[in-house]
Amino acid sequence: MSKPLILVTNDDGITSRGIQKLVELVSTIGEVVVVAPDSPQSGMGHAITVGDTLRLKPSNIFGDIQAYECSGTPADCVKLARHYVLKDRKLDLVVSGVNHGSNSSISVLYSGTMSAAIEGAIEGCPSIGFSLCDYDIEADLSHIDEFLVQIVKEALKKGLEEGVALNVNFPPIQRQKIKGIKVCRQANANWEEDFDERTDPYGRKYFWMVGNFVNHDKGEDNDETALANNYVSIVPCQFDLTAYHAIRQINEDWDI
Amino acid sequence: MSKPLILVTNDDGITSRGIQKLVELVSTIGEVVVVAPDSPQSGMGHAITVGDTLRLKPSNIFGDIQAYECSGTPADCVKLARHYVLKDRKLDLVVSGVNHGSNSSISVLYSGTMSAAIEGAIEGCPSIGFSLCDYDIEADLSHIDEFLVQIVKEALKKGLEEGVALNVNFPPIQRQKIKGIKVCRQANANWEEDFDERTDPYGRKYFWMVGNFVNHDKGEDNDETALANNYVSIVPCQFDLTAYHAIRQINEDWDI
Repeated sequence: MSKPLILVTNDDGITSRGIQKLVELVSTIGEVVVVAPDSPQSGMGHAITVGDTLRLKPSNIFGDIQAYECSGTPADCVKLARHYVLKDRKLDLVVSGVNHGSNSSISVLYSGTMSAAIEGAIEGCPSIGFSLCDYDIEADLSHIDEFLVQIVKEALKKGLEEGVALNVNFPPIQRQKIKGIKVCRQANANWEEDFDERTDPYGRKYFWMVGNFVNHDKGEDNDETALANNYVSIVPCQFDLTAYHAIRQINEDWDI
Repeated sequence: MSKPLILVTNDDGITSRGIQKLVELVSTIGEVVVVAPDSPQSGMGHAITVGDTLRLKPSNIFGDIQAYECSGTPADCVKLARHYVLKDRKLDLVVSGVNHGSNSSISVLYSGTMSAAIEGAIEGCPSIGFSLCDYDIEADLSHIDEFLVQIVKEALKKGLEEGVALNVNFPPIQRQKIKGIKVCRQANANWEEDFDERTDPYGRKYFWMVGNFVNHDKGEDNDETALANNYVSIVPCQFDLTAYHAIRQINEDWDI
């Protein structure tokens, strides 16, 4: 049986430790091709490059593994991989990460890591984004190996519902403290922004966005609760944004 | 009774014709404050500015109407408006657009226009993104007035379910051909990308992303069908991406 073909991408850029870890782990499972941003793309959400050009350059950063660095966003990387680099091949899995920082709850919307995975799902491919809930670029990644490999193997073996991408977050704790894996819903939380106002050397005002994560969700079945209780969280995500309940509300209440 | 406070933003930038039209229409309904990108931000999806600074500059482009141009993305504009410009005020509605180009179906994910509206919903505010299905920057916008005003008035009067942003698309046809408004689900369609490969004057390869929109959806109740049948489409959108049906599938099928 031939090895599954796995596309690896991320949003922290091709030189980050997280993607090195991901390549190392999934290359034990399948044939790996890497198409990743040539520079950090954190917070890029589902941005794509329109009205501008894209570059794609072969990279030997992963030795014998076929790899390319791309000037675009994480979603661009998946599109270029699917429709150019791997145009005539059957892609079995898209994995993205391992992100340096949490993508749980509402952060899924802002995350380049998860947007790459969702783009994979749009392309009809089982897709998974992995994130470690630790923003330290030097954070310990040793505790995630067995969980990540298990999740990738199950996704390849059992598949995912069409149009679904998994948002996997690892708690920043030692291996022996992790209690297991929980499949959850996205917690109802948000970032309450504040803006740090400063003056540049030329006398002009500028801002740094600073945010506090606020969890409004008291439920037990969401990703924030799972992570707080030392579980690896998996939220299956979809790209149909329709709020079906609101269709009824508008049709019943509105005069249109 | 005091006038409702309406935030206007977009992704084509503060000088575009679409935002001029939107400001003109909603300023007949409420007190308008504009915070919009200082340059085009099409395709930026839900990108936010992290790890870089933001600028915000007062603008007199709309005469007496309080307006600011922002160096960031559409989502940044909403965050800056909510937590800095309008920090101590109650915001009644966020409107975004009018986008030059369709944001129906899957395009909602890539759209800066709609990400601004979804950011408004995350902030707890009724929010609407408006788009004209015509990419021509000089496109005729005269036929949308009465529908746009009607939708804004109903949203202010009847409200929206919490966490819901409306994705409104106008067909590019004359007023008398429009049959009415339909509340729909997001069509299951996608962009099948191709990459136009070229060589720059220095001998290096680059790409333009070119896509064909492919509609796989045979249903009658989606936005593509509504638009094709000469209706204004409204898709209520949510920011909870959880694929609830897939939670069951994974829990039942996977060994984790």
